[in-house]
Amino acid sequence: MDEPVFSRLALIGIGLIGSSIALGARKHKLAAHVAVSTRTAETLARAKELGLGDSWHQDPAEAVAGADCVILCVPVGASGATAEAIGPALAPGAIVSDVGSVKASVIAAMSPHLPPNVHFVPGHPVAGTEYSGPDAGFAELFENRWVILTPPPETEATAVARLSQFWSRLGANVEAMNARHHDLVLAITSHVPHLIAYNIVGTAAHLEEVTESEVMKFSAGGFRDFTRIASSDPTMWRDVFLNNREAVLEMLGRFTEDLTALQRAIRFAEGDKLFELFTRTRAIRRGIIEAGQETAAPDFGRPHGADSQD
Amino acid sequence: MDEPVFSRLALIGIGLIGSSIALGARKHKLAAHVAVSTRTAETLARAKELGLGDSWHQDPAEAVAGADCVILCVPVGASGATAEAIGPALAPGAIVSDVGSVKASVIAAMSPHLPPNVHFVPGHPVAGTEYSGPDAGFAELFENRWVILTPPPETEATAVARLSQFWSRLGANVEAMNARHHDLVLAITSHVPHLIAYNIVGTAAHLEEVTESEVMKFSAGGFRDFTRIASSDPTMWRDVFLNNREAVLEMLGRFTEDLTALQRAIRFAEGDKLFELFTRTRAIRRGIIEAGQETAAPDFGRPHGADSQD
Repeated sequence: MDEPVFSRLALIGIGLIGSSIALGARKHKLAAHVAVSTRTAETLARAKELGLGDSWHQDPAEAVAGADCVILCVPVGASGATAEAIGPALAPGAIVSDVGSVKASVIAAMSPHLPPNVHFVPGHPVAGTEYSGPDAGFAELFENRWVILTPPPETEATAVARLSQFWSRLGANVEAMNARHHDLVLAITSHVPHLIAYNIVGTAAHLEEVTESEVMKFSAGGFRDFTRIASSDPTMWRDVFLNNREAVLEMLGRFTEDLTALQRAIRFAEGDKLFELFTRTRAIRRGIIEAGQETAAPDFGRPHGADSQD
Repeated sequence: MDEPVFSRLALIGIGLIGSSIALGARKHKLAAHVAVSTRTAETLARAKELGLGDSWHQDPAEAVAGADCVILCVPVGASGATAEAIGPALAPGAIVSDVGSVKASVIAAMSPHLPPNVHFVPGHPVAGTEYSGPDAGFAELFENRWVILTPPPETEATAVARLSQFWSRLGANVEAMNARHHDLVLAITSHVPHLIAYNIVGTAAHLEEVTESEVMKFSAGGFRDFTRIASSDPTMWRDVFLNNREAVLEMLGRFTEDLTALQRAIRFAEGDKLFELFTRTRAIRRGIIEAGQETAAPDFGRPHGADSQD
């Protein structure tokens, strides 16, 4: 268990996910060398200050040279251009992966730029916080979270197994599925939730009859829960919606259909219908807590009381 | 500051809010005697076991006899019947209040049953967790939260001031507004957020192509944030929607209109529109954190790492 999984791990992009992989890889000794690349000189300098890796490269092609594993940690809209930039420099036999929240479009964008002698294993760690950038990362981010791998059919099983081992040693659970199914599952568990959170926060900010100050003061009634994911990285999320359009529109259609039925139940005072739904939804949360994916602490374990005023 | 505010405080209903008031009143010595009343013998016995009060009454009329303050802590749909039950037993000069999340319909339901010689000061502490019942309460629940009072115009200012003092000493901030405005503000900061949370959890549970097990496993992508408020008390929330119908339908209409515009932006790949909204919504969260109504800790301060697996 103590052997590094990779001799040279190249991380292209060093935001929340990239920096968390870097810190986890160091903590668990998963790579002999971590090469860090990012687009801007400032972010690269900050990553260096934070000691997130072993070598520093503004040119991603330089970072991937000699690497046996390359993980793209960039917004999904940048996947194609990044693959194009690193393609010619990739070492034969290297594992090439990513962490994008959408898989089918990322595969379509990256595949044409990858030489046939590398192993393409697209991935998605279902983990994060509302913060972004190299300062936001922490080694425990992936512990007990799920990582979904979506290897194309032609990818060798040994490469998938090796990347799985890497993620397992970061503390994650790993599951493989096809890219289209991934995109559908994540549309309902992640993308549509973000969309409706962004939407209600936007709606609340634009009312004539209720001030923004009132919205903020009285947000503990439920609204503030939505503001967390509605403060997630705008570039990342724009790219998610542009790149998982069909699945998002399909799931959004289902959401709206159900919401219209609820609206009608309210209009016609059908209390039993409301009560029945409100009872069923409790069971889902219990299941998520039992599955180890959520805390049972009241209010997410938010601080309460006088010591919480900071 | 150390004098009790009330000599006999009667709490009708001893769920999350009632038990938190009871514990806070004890902690801060706000009432010489706390009389607890609740409908079922089991809950009353549990409240007694927990030592939440000083006397125990299945008949609410018995609890309010001689009380200088009575607070109804029942679902808003039960307000009218409860007021009817206690009306004849209320002491002259008593303050009568409640904690309902809707105010105009509660005032309409209670007013006819209250004698003219009591002070009616309807209230709403904007605080809670997803848990309910007498075991869920804690003394710090109201600290730094807002309590909205909606006294009818004829209520004496001294009674409003006295109830304000009580809530202030429980740690809350107090604001007064008219009932209709309260109902509109809370529709957007609390009621519609609950409705869309209940709705998406319901939608996710009913998909043919995505299993419930997948929804639970991959919920850390955003979905699980919604399950917290979607596990709130079904009776309480059914009553909220039935009793704040007009304001909820109005705010829901705004939400849907905005969501339709977002849906269209996704369909036509209008990335700039998405990016612009996603940037604006970040500022609202910052405002809520600065207003002391939310924690700045990543992921609500949820536990991360190996020590969080319980």
